[in-house]
Amino acid sequence: MRKRSLPLSQVYRLLEPGPVVLVTTLHRARANVMAQSWHTVMEFEPPLVGCVVGADNHSFAALKATRECVINIPTVALARQTVGCGNTSGRDVDKFAAFGLTPKPASEVAPPMIAECYASLEARVVDTRMVNRYNLFVLEVVKAWVDADEKDPRTLHHRGRGRFMVAGETIHLPSRMK
Amino acid sequence: MRKRSLPLSQVYRLLEPGPVVLVTTLHRARANVMAQSWHTVMEFEPPLVGCVVGADNHSFAALKATRECVINIPTVALARQTVGCGNTSGRDVDKFAAFGLTPKPASEVAPPMIAECYASLEARVVDTRMVNRYNLFVLEVVKAWVDADEKDPRTLHHRGRGRFMVAGETIHLPSRMK
Repeated sequence: MRKRSLPLSQVYRLLEPGPVVLVTTLHRARANVMAQSWHTVMEFEPPLVGCVVGADNHSFAALKATRECVINIPTVALARQTVGCGNTSGRDVDKFAAFGLTPKPASEVAPPMIAECYASLEARVVDTRMVNRYNLFVLEVVKAWVDADEKDPRTLHHRGRGRFMVAGETIHLPSRMK
Repeated sequence: MRKRSLPLSQVYRLLEPGPVVLVTTLHRARANVMAQSWHTVMEFEPPLVGCVVGADNHSFAALKATRECVINIPTVALARQTVGCGNTSGRDVDKFAAFGLTPKPASEVAPPMIAECYASLEARVVDTRMVNRYNLFVLEVVKAWVDADEKDPRTLHHRGRGRFMVAGETIHLPSRMK
């Protein structure tokens, strides 16, 4: 995989289609991974992302305390590992070891990137005012990496209860939309 | 299309995969349609949905004033119409007429459903505190309709600049995730 730095203005293109992501955190010297689908782009540039993280998740405390994470985007090649991360808790399991995921140092934040993911977005929490009521963290992406060879990634999209839609064909329609 | 009422507890399954949606509003006796991708599920039940709507959109004022909308989900069969709605403004165009979309009365809210969409979620704005800063409306889905025959809808997922990923195959992985 040949990772390149992606201009921050283009980050929305990775998250807007709604892929399942693997969010990594680092807390008390332990890295963790959480599978996550409740996210939305909130601004183009600097890219803001709203992420709802259930308060019972092990990653919730890490995110609240350290205010840093990496949003890693897997493809269908990591389907088993992705669901594995969703089925387990960082309280009990070292998910990197359990699922053969390779931590790779990020450049701007402490939590590691996942080498096997086709894209990784280094992010900082910039607003926690909606955490108490909605578990909603506002993240700013400060550095983005993407596999330069992956034009049409076969991302995973959760339809509930373990059913995942896999990204199909890409069509192009003349659009004025950014 | 054979529409049935969907239990509210299942609404997250329609939005979690990140489809482009067509949001209808009704303001000053005029119905309008907006193409939208910046949304996330925020709660299972009652289903809460966060929607970021640019303040320059004609629908922004309608949503703020009337606090009601319908989130309609198109499939690839409506790709041309969906992009058409994104390329035009309700200020200038009656989008229902321009794109041959059929308004159908909703049961709980004033804005119409779009008959051609495979699912329609009637929603009310329940929190506007994040509108000033982030253009983020928190919506509660109060009634949901879905085509009973559509198990694997070929939804559209925007990858930016008019590139749309079309939902591909569905895989099933044993998951503890809801």
